[in-house]
Amino acid sequence: MGNRIYATYWLETGDDPKRAAEAIAGEQSSGTFVALPTETAELKERSGARVENIEVLETVSSPSLPGGMKGDRYHRCRLTISWPLENLGPSLPNLMSTIAGNLFELKQVSGLRLLDLQLPHEFAQAYPGPAFGIEGTRKLAGISEGPLIGTIIKPSVGLSIEETARQVKLLVDGGIDFIKDDELQGDGGYCPFDDRVSVVMQVVNEAAQRTGRKAMVAFNLTGDLDQMKRRHDHVLAEGGTCVMVCLNSVGIIGLHELRKHSQLPIHAHRAGWGYLTRSPALGWEYAPWQKIWRLAGADHLHVNGLRNKFSESDESVIAAARSVLAPVMPEAPMTAMPVFSSGQTGLQAADTFAALGCADLIHTVGGGIFGHPGGVGAGVEALREAWAAAMSGTPLGQQAERSAALGQALEFWK
Amino acid sequence: MGNRIYATYWLETGDDPKRAAEAIAGEQSSGTFVALPTETAELKERSGARVENIEVLETVSSPSLPGGMKGDRYHRCRLTISWPLENLGPSLPNLMSTIAGNLFELKQVSGLRLLDLQLPHEFAQAYPGPAFGIEGTRKLAGISEGPLIGTIIKPSVGLSIEETARQVKLLVDGGIDFIKDDELQGDGGYCPFDDRVSVVMQVVNEAAQRTGRKAMVAFNLTGDLDQMKRRHDHVLAEGGTCVMVCLNSVGIIGLHELRKHSQLPIHAHRAGWGYLTRSPALGWEYAPWQKIWRLAGADHLHVNGLRNKFSESDESVIAAARSVLAPVMPEAPMTAMPVFSSGQTGLQAADTFAALGCADLIHTVGGGIFGHPGGVGAGVEALREAWAAAMSGTPLGQQAERSAALGQALEFWK
Repeated sequence: MGNRIYATYWLETGDDPKRAAEAIAGEQSSGTFVALPTETAELKERSGARVENIEVLETVSSPSLPGGMKGDRYHRCRLTISWPLENLGPSLPNLMSTIAGNLFELKQVSGLRLLDLQLPHEFAQAYPGPAFGIEGTRKLAGISEGPLIGTIIKPSVGLSIEETARQVKLLVDGGIDFIKDDELQGDGGYCPFDDRVSVVMQVVNEAAQRTGRKAMVAFNLTGDLDQMKRRHDHVLAEGGTCVMVCLNSVGIIGLHELRKHSQLPIHAHRAGWGYLTRSPALGWEYAPWQKIWRLAGADHLHVNGLRNKFSESDESVIAAARSVLAPVMPEAPMTAMPVFSSGQTGLQAADTFAALGCADLIHTVGGGIFGHPGGVGAGVEALREAWAAAMSGTPLGQQAERSAALGQALEFWK
Repeated sequence: MGNRIYATYWLETGDDPKRAAEAIAGEQSSGTFVALPTETAELKERSGARVENIEVLETVSSPSLPGGMKGDRYHRCRLTISWPLENLGPSLPNLMSTIAGNLFELKQVSGLRLLDLQLPHEFAQAYPGPAFGIEGTRKLAGISEGPLIGTIIKPSVGLSIEETARQVKLLVDGGIDFIKDDELQGDGGYCPFDDRVSVVMQVVNEAAQRTGRKAMVAFNLTGDLDQMKRRHDHVLAEGGTCVMVCLNSVGIIGLHELRKHSQLPIHAHRAGWGYLTRSPALGWEYAPWQKIWRLAGADHLHVNGLRNKFSESDESVIAAARSVLAPVMPEAPMTAMPVFSSGQTGLQAADTFAALGCADLIHTVGGGIFGHPGGVGAGVEALREAWAAAMSGTPLGQQAERSAALGQALEFWK
């Protein structure tokens, strides 16, 4: 790998593919629209981005995105470009401008999507990565194996502090491992952050004193930097064990600064991910995107869930989760914990486990827990039993013979 | 307007448009995929987002984006949703999660694009806006009317500090108003930030002592937060009058923190804008996007240029520039300066002026200045004369009768 940065793209172009690739490499390094006498051969050799590989995958008759140059046909290609690290140094913000800057606007491009990213080891020296990751999260949550069984406070916004605390009490009394704020719940007037944390943590701490295990609550501290630091300190002071932040809302510097300040795991929400990924011909795959946030310090990363209620395919969900569990680089794994959510019940446990080969994850389930006729405790137990079945290769029906809670759940999960 | 937030979207849906609109409003406030007994009528009235208006624009037979629900037809609509400010408070990061969060991933959506955003006045109390804007920039640059005539150091990366300084000397001796680093030029090994600033500012300061007017140089300090603050201080100490930052690379907190620290105008680059906007069925128009960054403190905002070398239409460029010049809200204009670039010469001056009705802008021109047979000074003069012609309504040919530099330029500008 040496000290170069490698980015792989899906490219669609109405131009000659090799010429388009060179135009992209030029725009993103020492070239510009016209040949310059000051871009000497020596300068280009030293600082120019290199087209490492381009492979034409297929040819289509019309462009995916408007505004590009017209062609008789449009070639779709897999393109790898590399840059000398020296151009920018190991800096995540400057990396963004380099691998994901102006290139999407080029006329040569009628489709461009970032598929993969390989970084030299200097990035792992310059950035901290997750402080807790899987192991640290398990330790704080008191769950040594299997997934953390979790849920989200609902309605997302609008509950008072007291209503929120009542919902949390039901959950911790039911034995839940993990609870999170909705990404819309920040510091609104009706449920202000500080008071919410104090009242919720009183419930959580009381339960922990009884049971010896403290549910992890991810409080959404998304806000301005000073606010986030102050809120973190408040969560810590009240005995909380996790904070949550919306990545696209605060940006790379927001996460990096929070990571430097935080003494708690950072639960990273990807609200807004849709505008980065929903067009197949544009934007980002999750694999390169989540790598940047892990370097900056994300401990938990949302990946949607199998058979979710959104538009994402199961294939994409699993690829995303695998990328979160894969090392950032061999010498610096920086592994984070994938968070599965959206329309989840115990019915997705076996397929999720089979696809990942491990249960180092957070599984957040709403209706599948709250809707259980035996109550929240039975809902949590049913989820845990579904995961025990998945991990031991036992069919759910057979597992239900030893768990009435699972048996009941199987009648309403769908 | 009261204390509500209003966002307007272009929506395409295979569902009934009104039902889809309600699903979006629900997902982004108190609703979820299933009806919850805890989402009472009173809670929904207080905290629910409201569909203010939906208008079907046209109907098409196939969806723009994959993954959504299938329909016989797909309705394209203009949709306005409002939220009570109380849900989130005047917080730009939480605003992002609310107006541009999960909604893009909904199955009801086969296309969704944010067109407009109206914010209550509390946002202008919570955020500083640009510290310099048009007036402060003009004062520092010593240009009381007409555009700032500018250019970008090229090649983007790869020049040594000495080569950069030689290019700057040519430019300041030629009477340029504004010079910027390329967005790829940060703090690379070959042209480190601190030394570049010191050597360039020596050239700029010497010229200013001779001429009494100091060219404004936007040094790209994009990096981690500590680095950006330190670099800003170095620019200030060396007598510099501007810093530049790549917005998508640092995020909202990056810009907001820089604004709080900075004593200089902030030149805001939009590298990566393409992945947010290039699909017409997804993402962001510039008008709502730039408003958020102006609140956070951007003084100058890139808008591409007429007849540019990228894929953006002239119509989109002008709409973007107008949005930068329009008030953020009547009681807090927070006007910023649009920056025109890409394939620009004096030939775009008249059309740009006619479309905006003013010359409160930065016009960055590369080949149109460097390629002038009379040298950089003649190139700058030709640009200035082209703008004088535009502002007085004089045809370029007629203006050229009194300016040999413009006359020569008209022979090679194209």
